[in-house]
Amino acid sequence: MGDISLPNELISNGNNGHAVGVQRKSCWYEEEIEENLRWCFALKSILHTGASQYQDIQLLDTKPFGKALVIDGKLQSAEIDEFIYHESLVHPALLNHPNPKTIFIMGGGEGSTAREILRHKAVEKLIMCDIDEEVVDFCKSHLVVNKEAFHDPRLELIINDARAELETREELYDVIIGDLADPIEGGPCYQLYTKSFYEFIVKPKLNQGGIFVTQAGPAGIFSHTEVFSCIYNTLRQVFKYVVPYSAHIPSYADTWGWVMASDSPIILTADELDLRIKQRIEGENRYFDGKTFTSASTLSKAVRKS
Amino acid sequence: MGDISLPNELISNGNNGHAVGVQRKSCWYEEEIEENLRWCFALKSILHTGASQYQDIQLLDTKPFGKALVIDGKLQSAEIDEFIYHESLVHPALLNHPNPKTIFIMGGGEGSTAREILRHKAVEKLIMCDIDEEVVDFCKSHLVVNKEAFHDPRLELIINDARAELETREELYDVIIGDLADPIEGGPCYQLYTKSFYEFIVKPKLNQGGIFVTQAGPAGIFSHTEVFSCIYNTLRQVFKYVVPYSAHIPSYADTWGWVMASDSPIILTADELDLRIKQRIEGENRYFDGKTFTSASTLSKAVRKS
Amino acid sequence: MGDISLPNELISNGNNGHAVGVQRKSCWYEEEIEENLRWCFALKSILHTGASQYQDIQLLDTKPFGKALVIDGKLQSAEIDEFIYHESLVHPALLNHPNPKTIFIMGGGEGSTAREILRHKAVEKLIMCDIDEEVVDFCKSHLVVNKEAFHDPRLELIINDARAELETREELYDVIIGDLADPIEGGPCYQLYTKSFYEFIVKPKLNQGGIFVTQAGPAGIFSHTEVFSCIYNTLRQVFKYVVPYSAHIPSYADTWGWVMASDSPIILTADELDLRIKQRIEGENRYFDGKTFTSASTLSKAVRKS
Amino acid sequence: MGDISLPNELISNGNNGHAVGVQRKSCWYEEEIEENLRWCFALKSILHTGASQYQDIQLLDTKPFGKALVIDGKLQSAEIDEFIYHESLVHPALLNHPNPKTIFIMGGGEGSTAREILRHKAVEKLIMCDIDEEVVDFCKSHLVVNKEAFHDPRLELIINDARAELETREELYDVIIGDLADPIEGGPCYQLYTKSFYEFIVKPKLNQGGIFVTQAGPAGIFSHTEVFSCIYNTLRQVFKYVVPYSAHIPSYADTWGWVMASDSPIILTADELDLRIKQRIEGENRYFDGKTFTSASTLSKAVRKS
Repeated sequence: MGDISLPNELISNGNNGHAVGVQRKSCWYEEEIEENLRWCFALKSILHTGASQYQDIQLLDTKPFGKALVIDGKLQSAEIDEFIYHESLVHPALLNHPNPKTIFIMGGGEGSTAREILRHKAVEKLIMCDIDEEVVDFCKSHLVVNKEAFHDPRLELIINDARAELETREELYDVIIGDLADPIEGGPCYQLYTKSFYEFIVKPKLNQGGIFVTQAGPAGIFSHTEVFSCIYNTLRQVFKYVVPYSAHIPSYADTWGWVMASDSPIILTADELDLRIKQRIEGENRYFDGKTFTSASTLSKAVRKS
Repeated sequence: MGDISLPNELISNGNNGHAVGVQRKSCWYEEEIEENLRWCFALKSILHTGASQYQDIQLLDTKPFGKALVIDGKLQSAEIDEFIYHESLVHPALLNHPNPKTIFIMGGGEGSTAREILRHKAVEKLIMCDIDEEVVDFCKSHLVVNKEAFHDPRLELIINDARAELETREELYDVIIGDLADPIEGGPCYQLYTKSFYEFIVKPKLNQGGIFVTQAGPAGIFSHTEVFSCIYNTLRQVFKYVVPYSAHIPSYADTWGWVMASDSPIILTADELDLRIKQRIEGENRYFDGKTFTSASTLSKAVRKS
Repeated sequence: MGDISLPNELISNGNNGHAVGVQRKSCWYEEEIEENLRWCFALKSILHTGASQYQDIQLLDTKPFGKALVIDGKLQSAEIDEFIYHESLVHPALLNHPNPKTIFIMGGGEGSTAREILRHKAVEKLIMCDIDEEVVDFCKSHLVVNKEAFHDPRLELIINDARAELETREELYDVIIGDLADPIEGGPCYQLYTKSFYEFIVKPKLNQGGIFVTQAGPAGIFSHTEVFSCIYNTLRQVFKYVVPYSAHIPSYADTWGWVMASDSPIILTADELDLRIKQRIEGENRYFDGKTFTSASTLSKAVRKS
Repeated sequence: MGDISLPNELISNGNNGHAVGVQRKSCWYEEEIEENLRWCFALKSILHTGASQYQDIQLLDTKPFGKALVIDGKLQSAEIDEFIYHESLVHPALLNHPNPKTIFIMGGGEGSTAREILRHKAVEKLIMCDIDEEVVDFCKSHLVVNKEAFHDPRLELIINDARAELETREELYDVIIGDLADPIEGGPCYQLYTKSFYEFIVKPKLNQGGIFVTQAGPAGIFSHTEVFSCIYNTLRQVFKYVVPYSAHIPSYADTWGWVMASDSPIILTADELDLRIKQRIEGENRYFDGKTFTSASTLSKAVRKS
């Protein structure tokens, strides 16, 4: 190595170690969307990790999607776009109901579903029944955005199996909401998506005019055949009126689906929905309004056909 | 979806969200060893992040290599094997010196080089001169393993450019150690590897019989041509006796090199080294002993030839 | 290692080498959707690679999305869902036109846009003008699905800058289609999305009742602000009627946008669109029909507002 | 979007599609070195893929390491540094033998071990016995560098289980070489590393003064405990003289080990080895010489102790 002259500002003694390279994103969260497909987010930090009897829990801080709740290696909810999922799950059913006073959530331990429900002024009583106490405690402690909801006096939080709880309780509900993991064969929630469950457990617990709504898995042009179509077809055997709808959720790298079902007609127009949003919901929706629902509930050709 | 019966233990209501998959490693640290080569460690957590005037700093907790200090996206030091680097940098020079009382480290802000030096009973005074105060403070706060070294009364810690500091000080040293980033052209440390620097700044500051040693970059069968050979050849123009040696460091995914240089002969045998280790060093070495040095200083054919 | 007895079927001598592990996906295509977000597909093979004066070209065979055309490290088109992009780009404009006989494509070198256009029985003449001859030749040779289109006698293929070509030609067109790279500032196509380009180059080349349509970049709930909103607002300054619409494209990991513009009203209902599809288009659409367009052209609240 | 003027050279119409980004490495080979550690090479192409009754086979063209043979998702051999593995496996044993005329390879289907053996002028007969015919055929067809070896008249290629073949044959060998997959418990080669196999099958087939050598898995400062130490300790129970040695192989991201064993002393000095290399081996070694072996057979403190 010969002698060279470097400008003064470059002359410095560095730190212990070897090559100083250009700065790059070096920490990543990686999810297998499916076996041959990965989705990777640059990480700011790993905020909290925990484990329950049932599942592993992580709260990550990601660069593209903000704080992210990850359960068993699967992204559940990202700060930046969880409102799409939760507004879509809650508002169509509650707005279509003439006066939703009592609500039951199966699952929902994250607290965001409760948060959206509690924005409805009509709601008097909300049961949230999740089996995993550690997940609920984790979210209660760490998800600031749901703090108020977790402390709302209208919320009754129960740690139990949703099926057992629904069977035990004698009261009826205006809206029942399924905020559960997908019905993977052999998975923990499979039984909560069956025809007999809907027919003998859910439907009898709805008040006259009551509405059931459930998250229904991926609803993309290819992915909708996994569970979305099945849930829709199952609910059609149990309820007179069934409305599927979907929305693209960026952090899920897919379009997501929900299905709403009732024995009373679900027929609000975009304008009527907008009017009820104004009258009934506190604060401003970020995703959901009448036109959005018109689009969301008009499925594309390929999805509609199957 | 038809009706199915699942064993009771599988019936539960899950948490909010979608598919619950099998658990997998989902957070990773990724380093570009070179443009076409990546090295990725599963992450337990991101313990601390910081930034100095010169560099970005991260302390990660990795699954394969324990706690890892990362500067500007490059791994500096991993809990599990940093002893290979630091024992190799320090002990050959100090053991070959008859009585090493005063030592000067250029760089070394991590503190591990100081830690190894201070294990030598003969050492009376140790100057550690690093330009980056934030990195030094970061390591002082977070690297528990070096805590004692940072508080040893024999250590004098100076924040300055190593060249400027060496020029200013009038005293001479028994051993001078280069623990700096690699000499990348245009990089911050380039000038601290030149012939004129060795000849006019380093050598005049060595006592009679003094030894200079420097980390010398990758020394693998292909990678040694980057800087290892250059440093060796440069030092041969300045000192009478020059000894290159190398060791495989797992967390670096490469063999690493050091070069020791003096105007007095460096000729201890494996047995003499082992004897001095026993007499002079407190505690037990984990990597370095006489036979290890015999092997480390016998370079393989390809490296020797170039 | 002691002596052990293994069942006979396990006793075999393997092949040269070291550990035999479980089989996993080992080859991946990786795309940076944005700086902090990666999208990775398991690879079956790398079918062809090439380079033009302007760009690098790869034809990959991926497990999740089939054959994929990648230009400069960005996925252009994947076998499994390119029909969503190309049906959406072509059919709304051609169906809304009373009798689309002459069409001009700016870009479109892949051939898929031409393929969809040529399914319309009314089309008599199609100019496809792409600047990159090597990309066109690459696609002509390797994309079997567009083979017929490239050899259709109604197609005139021109290698030129689209702006220069439009300016030079005297004839007018019923539909002009922009199938160009996004208008990145300083990028090659920026100028082909400006108000003056639309006003002074595109619009004068449209016949009475003519329609212009362009791909308009990502149109997701966050990503639409990058270029989709800009293109919509620019076109509104030039044309009387402007219709934006969007669709989720799985292989792009995002919702994509298009904008259609004309000085004649664009007012077909879903039923009228379905009727014209039946009358005018050969073969069956896989994505596009009347209801799909109703949904696609009803933007969600967040996108609509900005 | 306003009107802007771009320099002429930037004005062009691009190709079909969306954003044109900067070019990056987009195809990667990824190997799990261990559960929490990945090693990724940028890919030029996937040259050939195949599958045998036992294993999956791929020949990749990688940017950092050239052509790479991958079996069941594990790198076997990379063009750029396979010579380190194969020279280390073959030459120490053959050079230490006074006159190695007959050689038996267990495994070795890749052909590179045979290639190095056949460079020894003394060799008259070489048996290569691999169980996997498809792998052998794959390598014969695709590994140009071993073409000559596969056609050398001294080579007899046998498709069989190495144990069965050794037991059947009556002749004895000067050197027997184990070039088999690591002894993973329950894996296909486990039984070929046991004490009884060495004692009752291998040793009886060695001529007077014969030498056995085997690849012995990772020999890094941490990884040597997996199999390297076991193989060494097992062989010490069977042979009088046992010499372990190791070398860093860049493409394996680890130091690799071999063990040589005999009932005759193995005592050549570096100079004697260099002399025999000159006298006996055709062509020039790239890795192996006397000093390299001195270093390779002097294990570092941590490895030596366990």
